[in-house]
Amino acid sequence: MAGDGSDQRALQYEQTLMYGRYTQELGVYAKEEAARLRESGQRRSVTERSRALDLLEYDKGRCAKCRICTVRCQKFLISRVGEDWIFLILLGLLMALVSWVVDFCIAICLQAQKWMYGGLDSNVFLQYLAWVTYPVVLITFSAGFTQILAPQAVGSGIPEMKTILRGVVLKEYLTFKTFVAKVIGLTCALGSGMPLGKEGPFVHIASLCAALLSKFMSLFGGIYENESRNIEMLAAACAVGVGCCFAAPIGGVLFSIEVTSTFFAVRNYWRGFFAATFSAFIFRVLAVWNRDEETITALFKTRFRLDFPFDLQELPAFAVIGIASGFGGALFVYLNRLIVQFIRKQKAINRFLMKKRLLYPALVTLLVSTLTFPPGFGQFMAGKLTQKESLVTLLDNRTWAKQGIAEEFDYIGHSQAWKHPQVNVFVTLVLFIVMKFWMSALATTIPVPCGAFMPVFVIGAAFGRLVGESMAAWFPDGINTDGTIYPIVPGGYAVVGAAALSGAVTHTVSTAVIVFELTGQISHILPVMIAVILANAVAQSLQPSLYDSIIRIKKLPYLPELGWGHHEKYNIRVEDIMVRDVRYITLNCCYRDLHNVLLTGHLKTLALVESAESMILLGSIERAQLQSLLSQQLGRPRRLEYIRERAAAEKKRLSVVSNTGSEDGSQRTSQEVRFQISTEESSFSPTRPTPQKPLKPALKRPSVVERPTEIPTSPHDNSGIALKNLFCASPDTEGMEDDGDVEDDMTIREIAEWEENQLDEQVNFNNCKIDPAPFQLVERTSLHKTHTIFSLLGLDHAYVTSIGRLIGVVSLKELRKAIEGSVTVKGVKVRPPLASFRDSGTSSSENEVTELHKLWDRHKSMSLPREHTPSESDEKSQ
Amino acid sequence: MAGDGSDQRALQYEQTLMYGRYTQELGVYAKEEAARLRESGQRRSVTERSRALDLLEYDKGRCAKCRICTVRCQKFLISRVGEDWIFLILLGLLMALVSWVVDFCIAICLQAQKWMYGGLDSNVFLQYLAWVTYPVVLITFSAGFTQILAPQAVGSGIPEMKTILRGVVLKEYLTFKTFVAKVIGLTCALGSGMPLGKEGPFVHIASLCAALLSKFMSLFGGIYENESRNIEMLAAACAVGVGCCFAAPIGGVLFSIEVTSTFFAVRNYWRGFFAATFSAFIFRVLAVWNRDEETITALFKTRFRLDFPFDLQELPAFAVIGIASGFGGALFVYLNRLIVQFIRKQKAINRFLMKKRLLYPALVTLLVSTLTFPPGFGQFMAGKLTQKESLVTLLDNRTWAKQGIAEEFDYIGHSQAWKHPQVNVFVTLVLFIVMKFWMSALATTIPVPCGAFMPVFVIGAAFGRLVGESMAAWFPDGINTDGTIYPIVPGGYAVVGAAALSGAVTHTVSTAVIVFELTGQISHILPVMIAVILANAVAQSLQPSLYDSIIRIKKLPYLPELGWGHHEKYNIRVEDIMVRDVRYITLNCCYRDLHNVLLTGHLKTLALVESAESMILLGSIERAQLQSLLSQQLGRPRRLEYIRERAAAEKKRLSVVSNTGSEDGSQRTSQEVRFQISTEESSFSPTRPTPQKPLKPALKRPSVVERPTEIPTSPHDNSGIALKNLFCASPDTEGMEDDGDVEDDMTIREIAEWEENQLDEQVNFNNCKIDPAPFQLVERTSLHKTHTIFSLLGLDHAYVTSIGRLIGVVSLKELRKAIEGSVTVKGVKVRPPLASFRDSGTSSSENEVTELHKLWDRHKSMSLPREHTPSESDEKSQ
Repeated sequence: MAGDGSDQRALQYEQTLMYGRYTQELGVYAKEEAARLRESGQRRSVTERSRALDLLEYDKGRCAKCRICTVRCQKFLISRVGEDWIFLILLGLLMALVSWVVDFCIAICLQAQKWMYGGLDSNVFLQYLAWVTYPVVLITFSAGFTQILAPQAVGSGIPEMKTILRGVVLKEYLTFKTFVAKVIGLTCALGSGMPLGKEGPFVHIASLCAALLSKFMSLFGGIYENESRNIEMLAAACAVGVGCCFAAPIGGVLFSIEVTSTFFAVRNYWRGFFAATFSAFIFRVLAVWNRDEETITALFKTRFRLDFPFDLQELPAFAVIGIASGFGGALFVYLNRLIVQFIRKQKAINRFLMKKRLLYPALVTLLVSTLTFPPGFGQFMAGKLTQKESLVTLLDNRTWAKQGIAEEFDYIGHSQAWKHPQVNVFVTLVLFIVMKFWMSALATTIPVPCGAFMPVFVIGAAFGRLVGESMAAWFPDGINTDGTIYPIVPGGYAVVGAAALSGAVTHTVSTAVIVFELTGQISHILPVMIAVILANAVAQSLQPSLYDSIIRIKKLPYLPELGWGHHEKYNIRVEDIMVRDVRYITLNCCYRDLHNVLLTGHLKTLALVESAESMILLGSIERAQLQSLLSQQLGRPRRLEYIRERAAAEKKRLSVVSNTGSEDGSQRTSQEVRFQISTEESSFSPTRPTPQKPLKPALKRPSVVERPTEIPTSPHDNSGIALKNLFCASPDTEGMEDDGDVEDDMTIREIAEWEENQLDEQVNFNNCKIDPAPFQLVERTSLHKTHTIFSLLGLDHAYVTSIGRLIGVVSLKELRKAIEGSVTVKGVKVRPPLASFRDSGTSSSENEVTELHKLWDRHKSMSLPREHTPSESDEKSQ
Repeated sequence: MAGDGSDQRALQYEQTLMYGRYTQELGVYAKEEAARLRESGQRRSVTERSRALDLLEYDKGRCAKCRICTVRCQKFLISRVGEDWIFLILLGLLMALVSWVVDFCIAICLQAQKWMYGGLDSNVFLQYLAWVTYPVVLITFSAGFTQILAPQAVGSGIPEMKTILRGVVLKEYLTFKTFVAKVIGLTCALGSGMPLGKEGPFVHIASLCAALLSKFMSLFGGIYENESRNIEMLAAACAVGVGCCFAAPIGGVLFSIEVTSTFFAVRNYWRGFFAATFSAFIFRVLAVWNRDEETITALFKTRFRLDFPFDLQELPAFAVIGIASGFGGALFVYLNRLIVQFIRKQKAINRFLMKKRLLYPALVTLLVSTLTFPPGFGQFMAGKLTQKESLVTLLDNRTWAKQGIAEEFDYIGHSQAWKHPQVNVFVTLVLFIVMKFWMSALATTIPVPCGAFMPVFVIGAAFGRLVGESMAAWFPDGINTDGTIYPIVPGGYAVVGAAALSGAVTHTVSTAVIVFELTGQISHILPVMIAVILANAVAQSLQPSLYDSIIRIKKLPYLPELGWGHHEKYNIRVEDIMVRDVRYITLNCCYRDLHNVLLTGHLKTLALVESAESMILLGSIERAQLQSLLSQQLGRPRRLEYIRERAAAEKKRLSVVSNTGSEDGSQRTSQEVRFQISTEESSFSPTRPTPQKPLKPALKRPSVVERPTEIPTSPHDNSGIALKNLFCASPDTEGMEDDGDVEDDMTIREIAEWEENQLDEQVNFNNCKIDPAPFQLVERTSLHKTHTIFSLLGLDHAYVTSIGRLIGVVSLKELRKAIEGSVTVKGVKVRPPLASFRDSGTSSSENEVTELHKLWDRHKSMSLPREHTPSESDEKSQ
């Protein structure tokens, strides 16, 4: 989570490619890939055959044959590596190991703290120092380490994975650096004993693992690197992440689907189940091998009675837990966001914290650990227990509250921590819930890798326990009146509470399944389901889920969900929300039009229509393509070519006196130049990199200042020329300049004139990648349908056509606005209840600084030196 | 399932509407609906206000105010009825009641049989008669009742629901008749004690319930009847069906998603959970209220020990169960299909059975019940037990096999049935498995409402038990060597086996969850998951799922799934599979072209391009639209108009001698006619029904014989005229004929000439519904992507374009062919392993008899009388 907002600025993402272009690119890619594979396959078989021959010659016994066999086996195995299931098994294995090692390290860290605290029991002050310093050091280290190595590793990771699975490419989110930072940062953060969870980060770690494994496996060939397959694998990885974290394969798959997907392909289902089951299995087997457990059982095994788990008349109490958890969950999300926003808004605090990045984590940790100091306030809230221990005690099947039976319950083991000589267990529980609630909300804003699921889960369990103990105190002999006494099981209430609160915070139903898998008992299925559904109903009507809230805080490019049963969504049409003033280019436009469109517009892609009159949509072109077209037209190589041509013509004219008019001649020359260039282009295109590549590094510079662009209409505008020069600073000019033996003797005025002429030429779209099938909607498509299509296909815009004629465009921005309730059928603005809570973050469109603006600004700072030493700035711009 | 193939022929479905048109229609529909709602709302509020006023006048006391309050409350309640959750609660409640009542009746039926059998224990022959007659009567009644009332109710219903959720409209599948037939038929079928299940039919029953409830609720207004919402509700209903059948809400949701969906919208998730949980809750509460149970617990509660459910070293045995179940599941599907196909192919048997429809069910029942007769062969296979009793005994946590301890295990209760004085319990189990296996495969082919899930589940449990008992006999003291003796629990193996076999047959993973919910214990989660995944892996590579198999047998229009990790699918492109010879019409074509295209083509929709040269795709038009265009152009009303015009012109010519040439005049006349007609059309269009309506009844006639069409190019062709006359026999001619005081005095020759002239006119597309945004792909889209898009959007065809130019079309047929492996990258036909098993059914395209052919044949039989009495046949054709 963005505690100090710095990681948000570091977030540089690239909108997903357009639908049509994407498929086209995929096609081109696949072809190249196939060619590459075929080639490498041949090469490999050749080398292997020669190797086999070598072996045969080396010793001509049986041994050689064996070796050939081995080689063949190897070859077979390598060819099998491409199979999905091998990938999934490797992923599961790896993640189980990571999960187990992380758990092991966390356990050691926590033991160390306890040991230090226990060893110093002679002096309370020393004890306090040890109790407090240890987590502060660990958290500070974690924050610093993550900040330095990979700031992307901060936070949960589920919001980012949700965005990535939506098709958006978030840079640096799936690199090895991030992996290392996340794993080490997470271990330290959780080792500190702060109320943080490992579940969200594990989703991210699993995805990182999958991405790295995929890269590694592609060394062996196969179809790795295929984008749609990668997305499938990432979805499976998310399931593995949850699965190996809780040893909950089914819950893991469902939870990961609920939090990351909008539409789920059932055919990917098995991948998740397969990998998550394998991972959970290995994770638990490791525990058995390590002699922690006797056999494979649940992580937080409960032992409730099976015959009569609960009475029918206890159901209202369960429903109350559900509804209260719903409110609690919404409050948690709100509190969490409030803290982030408070710190961001207070500019003084913010500036100070930005300077001393590690101060905020240290302060928060100091506060939290001071309050949980066992001899201090911690004694009233079981501060001694780690998260795991608290959960185990909360799920205990014995009753803590005083029973009708005279003798007081005998607290054994960790349960002792809940007992206080002066204070009732109810007070302890209430204090625990209240303190942990704000502590967790605060702690999850620390910029370290951490999740909020587990803390919330524990708080929910405590709340459930509180209700359960109250019920047990109220009905000491149980409620059932038919003979047998079945006392109330407060542990069952704890299970229900845990599922309900975590369900409310994350807006998922599958926490119910996770709870069953964690406890190893499913006897409370109906109460759990009822409570989870009620909690979801309440929480979803009040607040977005924690992950969606973070998405908004971080302004990630994500489309909000349609709410529960908002019927008005069926009545809004695309024509109500579309932008009618579409930027387009015509098939027969000249370069000047292109230039103007590029300077004024903001969109990533532009529509290509047949003509301004017919407006028949032919396709769409990416902005970068147009920029490269323009840069080719006005580029230095072309100009040099022109100079050469001119010199040749001059020579000719000097040697032979022709009778053609000068105007006529120049026109012919420019025609010739154009043809020549276009053939050169086509001969270059297969080998050179895509033209937009060199422009990209410019986007990464964080120091770019926004300014309104000036349109260089006057030919004497110096900067206009420089801009155009900037465009042509692409690497393929190097190759051209080798044979360019002419010197650039044109004056600025001449250049401007030449460029003016060039701009009047008609655009040649031959070498331009056109997306021939951009997604089209009709005016009357409903918002509901549009949302579905956008989510399904991961679009970021769609054209609205009417019998082939382009009449509008709808982008994610419009859709987002419409969904968030600013548009209704009548065009009046209506805000949904509590909308003010929801859209307190501004829309993410601000991030969409056009590439041209950035280029413009960049050039401004570079144009002057460029005038003198063109070759130097050429290098710089790469 | 189609035992005699008759229901398959009765299946008349209508392909889903095209994507673009669908949204457009939805738009139009929604607008109308909105208008209707607004109107009815106003009307309602007016009536209510007046009613309130009436009340005030009637007695002016406090009572009146109360009544106004009541009225307002009513109004409020009615307005709330539109909410999703009310619908879902009602659905859940209804289905729980249905499920409980069905279960109750089945239990009574089974008890009655036992009572009869028990009462006649003096005479074995009478006993046999009673044992056999009872099920035969019930099954025969069920088959007969279903056949008469609604043949659509036969079989499982899951394949049909899968097809409906894909977007295809199956007629008569969601009517009240079907509901009644399905519920009563199912009760009788299961009451007979045959190895049949209630789970598949319950999915269908729940969908029926949802559809009927939706219709009922739409009486109160609201947004019911919206198609996309209906689909969402049907998906939720499927979850309810499974949920209330097994009291398994989570498993129900997951199972229904796995068997019915290809892509699942996570936002619909809660609907399923909500309704299924509520339904399962009510279902179990009913049992408590009926004093069957003390409190809410699982349906087949197990009592395995929690501490040490299984040893790590037992896992290979579980894996063996999984793999064997995979083969078993595939065999079951194969066997089931083999039986259906055998009966269909043997023409003699088939003809005989078709005549005596009830003979087949009766014979099968006789065979099965004879073999299970307890004093006969039944004693070796626990024939005495009902399905439920067998399952309860199989999941027992005691061990049956002789233990190391001397004294033999004491069989109590129903478990006695498994014990035979002479025969080992292993033999009994093996016999049970083998006999039940083929019996279930046979019984599910009977044309009654029945599912195969439960029988398969029981067989799986028996198989698991067999393995478990063997393990128990092999390791009498358990495997664990560390001190404590943990004996092996054969019941746990039964749970694993049940989940694995049912998972293999249905190709689902969620049977694991169902098993946990059914038994109320989740301690065996890892063995179950491992076995289910292995079973799925084996079964999916051998055979389609049972439901997909039925879809193929019934030839339902469904797109097959992409298999597990078939990498070559990523390398096939649309250009490899598309049809390049696209039927199209141009914007400026004449009616003759339209006519020719309609006569030669088969497709439901035709592409509209700008011109044959440019081939720019403008949209697509439905065949029916074109037919109505043509019928309007050549229709009787226009001809009468022409006659009137001609008569008027004649009059004019007689009165005033003009100097214009006759040719010139006629041309002008025809021009005038055209304009006049077009204005008339537009004035008619808002009120009259859609033009294609009257053509539809013709499609229902089963007696249509296919013939090659003759193209009526010669103007003297009599049938050509009649065909055209037939086209104009639409109901809107009635209105025209009222004022048509002219008599049709044209000779056939004149008519032919007139029609020839009409055909040469340019088509006026103004009143034609054009889909302006048909789905477009590019040539290089991969098969994988195409499949995804088709599944996601429920397309049945898509155009392939290249920069706006239409270059091909891909329909479901091509896609199906490509997926089933007849096309590869190199264009060589390769069949996947065991493909011969899979595509034994021919493609469903045969069903696509063009409407025109049917019309043609129909006209052939009607053209002669029509010549004499045109008005009569006009009536007939309506």
